[in-house]
Amino acid sequence: MSLTFYAAPMSTASITEAVLAELGIDCDRIDLDLSAGDTKKPEYLKINPNGKVPTIVHDGTAIWESSAITMYLGELFGVDAKLYPAPGPQRGEAMKWIAWSNVTLAESAGRLFVSLPPEMQGDPATNATELEKVTSEQKSEIAMERAKADIADCFNILNIGLEGRSFLIGEYSLADTHLQGLVGWIASMNVDLTPFPNVTEWLQRCYQRPAIAKLMAGW
Amino acid sequence: MSLTFYAAPMSTASITEAVLAELGIDCDRIDLDLSAGDTKKPEYLKINPNGKVPTIVHDGTAIWESSAITMYLGELFGVDAKLYPAPGPQRGEAMKWIAWSNVTLAESAGRLFVSLPPEMQGDPATNATELEKVTSEQKSEIAMERAKADIADCFNILNIGLEGRSFLIGEYSLADTHLQGLVGWIASMNVDLTPFPNVTEWLQRCYQRPAIAKLMAGW
Repeated sequence: MSLTFYAAPMSTASITEAVLAELGIDCDRIDLDLSAGDTKKPEYLKINPNGKVPTIVHDGTAIWESSAITMYLGELFGVDAKLYPAPGPQRGEAMKWIAWSNVTLAESAGRLFVSLPPEMQGDPATNATELEKVTSEQKSEIAMERAKADIADCFNILNIGLEGRSFLIGEYSLADTHLQGLVGWIASMNVDLTPFPNVTEWLQRCYQRPAIAKLMAGW
Repeated sequence: MSLTFYAAPMSTASITEAVLAELGIDCDRIDLDLSAGDTKKPEYLKINPNGKVPTIVHDGTAIWESSAITMYLGELFGVDAKLYPAPGPQRGEAMKWIAWSNVTLAESAGRLFVSLPPEMQGDPATNATELEKVTSEQKSEIAMERAKADIADCFNILNIGLEGRSFLIGEYSLADTHLQGLVGWIASMNVDLTPFPNVTEWLQRCYQRPAIAKLMAGW
């Protein structure tokens, strides 16, 4: 088995990094420099024509989109490790939260990110390609407030989903590994989690996972 | 086995409808009236707190997000039907296209939709909730042109992905079923497919699938 992981800091590759850490999978990791345009170079675009990370290449096949990668690694390596359910309704629940993370929650989070002042967007060069097209209205107070309201709607859904449960599908699974990365990033953009106690407590439980705690200590 | 499918016309439930048709699965179908606010009623929000369609309920478990639903039905019912690969790299390819449809392509398509003049957005009541929050800049010529440019970037990626292939992963699969629904919707918004000959020819091949042709004849 050969597995290559194309990563970069401050990107959704952090989600894949956490998934691989939970699964304890050895892989060849290639760190790309977003500010040097590594993801836009022809040799990388052959692997992922979107010019983004993460990408994994498993036995010669390139797989992109972090939600697909989490589900893919989950079904191949997570079932025996008790981190991903066997096929059936419980796996469906994991899949719905993973897809929801990247389709619904990430859409609002992306709008919040571009609306932030530059000093809260990290290294300017890292996201230069994404940020250069941003319009004045996308950076407006109205856009920021609307993104925050949509995130609050999402966190309300997540809060309800976690009612009476320690983790998304009961026991800890890669759905939690995946979603905690996105929720942690959103919280870092000064989004208040206190109105969502189930989310706050769940995030702390995720952070106590040894694999995640170890990764966070290294950042 | 019990399977309930919550649907509505002019929504991504059409993708799930096509997937179910390809698989030939019997289900209880419940058609919701978006203009009557059916998806925002308390009893439906208990099933899908996002207030959207599609949702499926399989043996008592609610699964939402059309990309998760396609992959879920694919792995449970599509492998024996030769419509979804067994676990492994080829399935990973199907998963990446399905996730990409809803994360990357649908994001641009959504921006194009809200930028359109009202007469191109179908029944106003159907999308009232989504459209009421749209700002003037989201409806501007600039927003429309930018959405079209981003869609062209996506179609270029799809065109490359289809080079030398009849379908996304070689043989026809539920990845095609899923993506053709979204591409067809985008084409209906006056997006020109002619610069992308592989996409144009692939879409025609998809439309020749008996299950899809039958559905389209009924719309």
